[in-house]
Amino acid sequence: MLMNHMDPLGRGYNRRCLCFDLESRVIPPDKLRSVEILPSGPHCRNAEVVAQLAGGEKICLNHRAPWVRRLVRFILEKEPHQTALLH
Amino acid sequence: MLMNHMDPLGRGYNRRCLCFDLESRVIPPDKLRSVEILPSGPHCRNAEVVAQLAGGEKICLNHRAPWVRRLVRFILEKEPHQTALLH
Repeated sequence: MLMNHMDPLGRGYNRRCLCFDLESRVIPPDKLRSVEILPSGPHCRNAEVVAQLAGGEKICLNHRAPWVRRLVRFILEKEPHQTALLH
Repeated sequence: MLMNHMDPLGRGYNRRCLCFDLESRVIPPDKLRSVEILPSGPHCRNAEVVAQLAGGEKICLNHRAPWVRRLVRFILEKEPHQTALLH
């Protein structure tokens, strides 16, 4: 669950972590509008990953989960014709 | 250069790419407030990486650049006490 009144702005703006409940279900890349990664820092011990779904909803992902790291890597490395094989 | 009147919202909201000029200088993680990754899609052939700097400025990074991928991986995998060794 993301503290919804807080825009995910990370270090310097937020005075604390944004994410409390982490989504465990695997989110297919084509359901994603964006993935925002907030580095850890004085405001929050952990890096935080906030995914915005195609419908606009924002959810927190576990930055340690292998599938989240594969998801981020896939998005960065995907060539235009490629499809998602995350499992 | 990021089309500044557009919030980086990715698929479904934007009807085109957001980034035109890509920042080539390496940005140290501690200068970053967040990194937003926008998957490629019908709206834009390329994945886009929008970094928000500590001062609030938004710049576009090259999603293919090795240092950008190392940066994202570092943020996700960094343990609280670790420091940045990106070069």
